[in-house]
Amino acid sequence: MRIILLITACLLTAVPGQAQDLQFADLGTLELESGEELLDCRIGYRTFGALTDSRNNAILVPTWYGGSSESWIKRQTELLGEEHGFFVIVVDAIGNGVSVSPSNSETQGGDAFPEITTRDMVRSQYRLATEVLGLEHLHAVMGISMGGMQSFEWAVLYPDFMDHVVPIAGSPRLGGHDVALWEAYKRLLAWSAECQCDEAAQTMMALRLVNGTTSDQASVPADSVSARIDRATPGMDPGIAMNLIRQADAMNATDVTLSFDGDWEAAAEAVKAEMLIIVGSSDHVVTPGPAIAFAGLLGDKAELVVFENDCGHNIPGCEMFRSRALISEFLRGN
Amino acid sequence: MRIILLITACLLTAVPGQAQDLQFADLGTLELESGEELLDCRIGYRTFGALTDSRNNAILVPTWYGGSSESWIKRQTELLGEEHGFFVIVVDAIGNGVSVSPSNSETQGGDAFPEITTRDMVRSQYRLATEVLGLEHLHAVMGISMGGMQSFEWAVLYPDFMDHVVPIAGSPRLGGHDVALWEAYKRLLAWSAECQCDEAAQTMMALRLVNGTTSDQASVPADSVSARIDRATPGMDPGIAMNLIRQADAMNATDVTLSFDGDWEAAAEAVKAEMLIIVGSSDHVVTPGPAIAFAGLLGDKAELVVFENDCGHNIPGCEMFRSRALISEFLRGN
Repeated sequence: MRIILLITACLLTAVPGQAQDLQFADLGTLELESGEELLDCRIGYRTFGALTDSRNNAILVPTWYGGSSESWIKRQTELLGEEHGFFVIVVDAIGNGVSVSPSNSETQGGDAFPEITTRDMVRSQYRLATEVLGLEHLHAVMGISMGGMQSFEWAVLYPDFMDHVVPIAGSPRLGGHDVALWEAYKRLLAWSAECQCDEAAQTMMALRLVNGTTSDQASVPADSVSARIDRATPGMDPGIAMNLIRQADAMNATDVTLSFDGDWEAAAEAVKAEMLIIVGSSDHVVTPGPAIAFAGLLGDKAELVVFENDCGHNIPGCEMFRSRALISEFLRGN
Repeated sequence: MRIILLITACLLTAVPGQAQDLQFADLGTLELESGEELLDCRIGYRTFGALTDSRNNAILVPTWYGGSSESWIKRQTELLGEEHGFFVIVVDAIGNGVSVSPSNSETQGGDAFPEITTRDMVRSQYRLATEVLGLEHLHAVMGISMGGMQSFEWAVLYPDFMDHVVPIAGSPRLGGHDVALWEAYKRLLAWSAECQCDEAAQTMMALRLVNGTTSDQASVPADSVSARIDRATPGMDPGIAMNLIRQADAMNATDVTLSFDGDWEAAAEAVKAEMLIIVGSSDHVVTPGPAIAFAGLLGDKAELVVFENDCGHNIPGCEMFRSRALISEFLRGN
């Protein structure tokens, strides 16, 4: 049955392929939040597992910052287990170098690539799910980090389209700390791509060590920090730098209240899915404050899990067993 | 009596001046931790209040990163109150642009200025206190941030020389997070001084917003972050940049265990003063982990105060009333 269903799914795709293999859907023009148009919007994705006859087991997974559907493969088993029974659609986020991006767009390459938001990524995923995969409903949307931000946006943009939403280390609207982090990172990317110099590469590595982990000294031994920074070498590809700049802007534009005149309560009221919101107390990349606040407004619609640990942004990796159990129970709850 | 004693103090200084006015002591050559020599070591300082006949009320205050004895003036009243009864000696840390620094050294200016450590700053202060001010004992050493690091070093370098040590938002040895932060900041300083460009100035501002405050979004509203970053303008003076680079290296070299082969317990055992160690739970500039750990090793010799708030590195400013009460009680305890 699995094979038959996979073939069915493939017939619906623009570019046929095997399950887990990278496939592409050509969506044509994507209308952007900004009013601009993203031309030749080609979206990469991979599917895992099989859609049931009742078509009620599809989970859509948007990718994290700089990540791809390929980078999800290992994570999937960690988070869902080997035999999860779901039909998982992992979608390469716009700007990740697989889907349409500054580095690969023939019509809007490099600087000409329009600024995007995580909402635009979500719109491309909705079109993939409905127009290409022929789905009318998703069991769940689940994502980590920038994938968690997209999950939040899914919950307010298409509230009737899924039963469950699981943002992990995500944010419904970035706090000032996070916005500043990406503003710094964007400029370091541009500097690195331009100068191809040790100083820029080392500064980027230092910033990653500052925020990518936790403030607890145990997780980043001081002795190794200077050595790791000194070892950082130039080689930032300008196309990849522009991809990461556009995705950073997309994260900074994340805002579930956008359709509600900035009203958090109205945004929370619009959510219809059950949400499992997982954050880390020591996360200095996507700080947990906004997700915790939004969970509070969601009331009974949300289950909030705050991992109190020193893992920084490295959740769920750091809490894999507990995360898997929580997610498994939550996704099978209904 | 106050006036007479102030004149006495001034007679002992190399360059006479009024209380609170900037004075200078020329220490000649300072032997550095590295084995190198810092030539023409001129140290700026200001004194407040009067030394008692029994000469038992002197408090030495090292300055914070980029700060000066002038920048202490306001803080002093906040921390000690108007009528504190102490003879406060605020010493400009080497490299702050007032004391001998890359920006003002005639013999070792700019890049030629040797790398220094917070221990070297402390040695210059010890020589000022003993050789110039004729003091044989201090009631206390107290400092904020980099001043707190110097306070920790005072406690192990000259354990018999003072009764009390009060490091505020300081660290006995920087954790990996903090080291990485200063490694990033140093390179941004150099870039800013070299390119005099918007991008570098904006990246520095962004990094300040990321770490200078807390990760809680309330303290840095997201809406204002981008505007504040965009407003940052070039103008980093190369001399000042080199001052800040050398002071950043000095902080990263802070290590109270240096004379004890990295043995924390031996370092703690060497301390003889009573210590009041004040840190903030959300401090992302000088993370509190190492200070808390060291306080644990000090046992009865230390009182540890952890402010659980969202003020980031802005302690004691954010907890001025409680800090003043704590410090006042502690300094008058014996």
